[in-house]
Amino acid sequence: MSWNRKHLLDIYSLSKEEILTVLDTAKGFKQVGRRSIKKVPALRGKTVVNLFVEPSTRTRVSFELAAQRLNADIINFTAEASSFKKGETLKDTIRNLEALTADIVIIRHSSAGAAHFLSRVVESSIVNAGDGAHSHPTQALLDLYTMREKKGDLQGKEVTILGDILFSRVARSNIWGLQKLGARVTLCGPPTLVPKSLESMGCKVTYDVKEALSNADIINLLRIQHERQQHSMFPSLGEYSKLFGLNQERLAWLKPDAMIMHPGPINRGVEIESEIADSERSVVLEQVTNGLAVRMAVLFLVSGGKVASLEQKMGDVN
Amino acid sequence: MSWNRKHLLDIYSLSKEEILTVLDTAKGFKQVGRRSIKKVPALRGKTVVNLFVEPSTRTRVSFELAAQRLNADIINFTAEASSFKKGETLKDTIRNLEALTADIVIIRHSSAGAAHFLSRVVESSIVNAGDGAHSHPTQALLDLYTMREKKGDLQGKEVTILGDILFSRVARSNIWGLQKLGARVTLCGPPTLVPKSLESMGCKVTYDVKEALSNADIINLLRIQHERQQHSMFPSLGEYSKLFGLNQERLAWLKPDAMIMHPGPINRGVEIESEIADSERSVVLEQVTNGLAVRMAVLFLVSGGKVASLEQKMGDVN
Amino acid sequence: MSWNRKHLLDIYSLSKEEILTVLDTAKGFKQVGRRSIKKVPALRGKTVVNLFVEPSTRTRVSFELAAQRLNADIINFTAEASSFKKGETLKDTIRNLEALTADIVIIRHSSAGAAHFLSRVVESSIVNAGDGAHSHPTQALLDLYTMREKKGDLQGKEVTILGDILFSRVARSNIWGLQKLGARVTLCGPPTLVPKSLESMGCKVTYDVKEALSNADIINLLRIQHERQQHSMFPSLGEYSKLFGLNQERLAWLKPDAMIMHPGPINRGVEIESEIADSERSVVLEQVTNGLAVRMAVLFLVSGGKVASLEQKMGDVN
Repeated sequence: MSWNRKHLLDIYSLSKEEILTVLDTAKGFKQVGRRSIKKVPALRGKTVVNLFVEPSTRTRVSFELAAQRLNADIINFTAEASSFKKGETLKDTIRNLEALTADIVIIRHSSAGAAHFLSRVVESSIVNAGDGAHSHPTQALLDLYTMREKKGDLQGKEVTILGDILFSRVARSNIWGLQKLGARVTLCGPPTLVPKSLESMGCKVTYDVKEALSNADIINLLRIQHERQQHSMFPSLGEYSKLFGLNQERLAWLKPDAMIMHPGPINRGVEIESEIADSERSVVLEQVTNGLAVRMAVLFLVSGGKVASLEQKMGDVN
Repeated sequence: MSWNRKHLLDIYSLSKEEILTVLDTAKGFKQVGRRSIKKVPALRGKTVVNLFVEPSTRTRVSFELAAQRLNADIINFTAEASSFKKGETLKDTIRNLEALTADIVIIRHSSAGAAHFLSRVVESSIVNAGDGAHSHPTQALLDLYTMREKKGDLQGKEVTILGDILFSRVARSNIWGLQKLGARVTLCGPPTLVPKSLESMGCKVTYDVKEALSNADIINLLRIQHERQQHSMFPSLGEYSKLFGLNQERLAWLKPDAMIMHPGPINRGVEIESEIADSERSVVLEQVTNGLAVRMAVLFLVSGGKVASLEQKMGDVN
Repeated sequence: MSWNRKHLLDIYSLSKEEILTVLDTAKGFKQVGRRSIKKVPALRGKTVVNLFVEPSTRTRVSFELAAQRLNADIINFTAEASSFKKGETLKDTIRNLEALTADIVIIRHSSAGAAHFLSRVVESSIVNAGDGAHSHPTQALLDLYTMREKKGDLQGKEVTILGDILFSRVARSNIWGLQKLGARVTLCGPPTLVPKSLESMGCKVTYDVKEALSNADIINLLRIQHERQQHSMFPSLGEYSKLFGLNQERLAWLKPDAMIMHPGPINRGVEIESEIADSERSVVLEQVTNGLAVRMAVLFLVSGGKVASLEQKMGDVN
């Protein structure tokens, strides 16, 4: 195991070994959620700030809980209430948080590169909780965690990502992570959202849904972010559902043990039929549970936590 | 004492013995608020979520403080910031919170039945913090607590509830609770808000304010929720005040030791004159104090806390 | 050292000795921010409420962190989400918080006198976090802390405050504090914002920027609160910058060791050039760090903390 990074900015720059360190560390933390007393004092007396300039209750809550369970102090700082209104820059805000001796700043921002930028101007650890269409490393890590837990070593596994790839930081982060762990990635969806040029990332691109689904060990359905698209890149949600939604007919194409994933929140009846989303085949809620464990691992590691000392800390519950 | 429930959904389904268990447990917790160190470790390492889909700072703060004093971790999750915007259903949200291993979810929702619905779809404990016009059990429990503390056994006591009964979950929950503890309930107010048909709940309905006030041991003045009424059910706030507001003239009709309650926030000069609200006769602020103790008791009990072990836990301050 | 106050309402009524007690207490707490475990149990089991009726993320976060590091429970209560909407008065709100056994209420309000008013109607300790154009005592205390840390005893020191004085609670609080510690204060800025009548506070008023800057040991640049001014009191931000902004040309007028302060958030390019704000001469970020320490000291002192017992408490980390 190895981890010497102060920040988690993207998944692209992590080595296979570093990714596995996060996943193995998360395994220990997942146990904490099953205890009666769900706390470990690993970050006792540390200050964590949730700096959310783009709203996301789900991710914010997951990080907030992760910090609480590590016994850190956590402050929520959202853009609406912030002094951005008063003309302060993002750099000023982060430097103010650093001056308040924040140990870790978790940043969600609508601009690609925000987390990288911040990591260059402060001493605090920066954790990227999603920056524009660029990267969402903890989502990729929790997806990888879930795949490995269910399917074992990902070397040679076939993973199909279906949906809006072009605008999706989740897709991009998944592709990078999967390739580092040796999986083969197929992308499928409407040509406007899945251009052939994505093959330059080392993936296969197909517009044949049957082919994409029938070969896969794992299917990752991405959310159609219709609220973000100002110029619709596909006819309508109904049209998308008809052409690409996972319904009973298409479900029959899957391998018997193929696993269905979705980063949530689901548009029921669009990317996936409600019944399938709630079936045994889907691991959507386990992804949420694993997200908490992975975020605990990330906060622990970037704060300088050593895996060797983790077992000891886990016992010493506050 | 007895408590085997995982949820607190309404007051209607509680037995008299269960209600008394909550009230007696709250008595112990009320002491905690008088200590120098206002904390007990009864819910240490548990995760509590305040899921408020209908805004209410007062109730949210009361529950938040209750959870903090029991040493639980608490997350605030409000609808404005949530992913409801993105088309996720309430069921998805609660199942996500469950996947984050939330032990207790406190739900406030504008739809009657929301808490019951949620309790059927997740394993977490559900506490109803008000669902539409249906139920508000912790408000009823804190009202009962206050009445018993001041007036002793409620068997045979005369309680008058004055105001908007028809649309009030507070009224409905009070009526159920009071009847279980043996009190006699009289309802009074404008006929549009207090229809004669409410007698089917086992109450007396009268439009004679003098009669309603002069017989009562306890008067519970309900808030006129004028902001909720789209079609005004009575002429105006001024008109209501003139006909039903508790002023000096009507105060003289009360028994000398009759106790005045109000769930807050008060519309000063509407349901009650400011001077009376702030007088010795009114227990409005004690209701707030008792609400905190009652909510601590509810969180403790639904999490499986045993009353027998409480005294021990109360000593072992974190 | 001496402190017997239950509230911190303004800086005007504090004696020199009391101000020094806060500053000396803050010195101890500043060390806490440099530790690996940034917590002391001085307010364990106390309840602190951040009642922010006027939005201010920076000040709210600073107080929230201060309370967390003292191990208090803290509740955020903002006006938007509050029951003010429902017609409850500020007095009712504070008395409700008192009924919830809040030990300390930190109040930020757009009306001058709000904190004083509240201190007269409840038993809880009140800390003024800014009330209208009146007072902002913790800002003044953190400014004084920073000046003393860098410049030693303030007796006889020359301090220039430049900018919008008339509408500024920061200016008013600084003037009072500086005079109590023996500094000489010069005010400078546009005549509409710095009327000659301010000399009645014991300051010198000048419209000669060169004179104001060249004599000073310390320069405090105030924020131009253009978002508050309905009728512009000066031509434009560009005009202000041209006439009063601290640029390279004016920087040359300063004494070699003159220190540059700003309460933040900075309007870069208006009150000060970016490069100067980020230079060694500026202590803007140290002010933020010191603000946290000063707020810990204030919360500790108003809660009855004794300085003698502080050292002991600082060691006993939770």
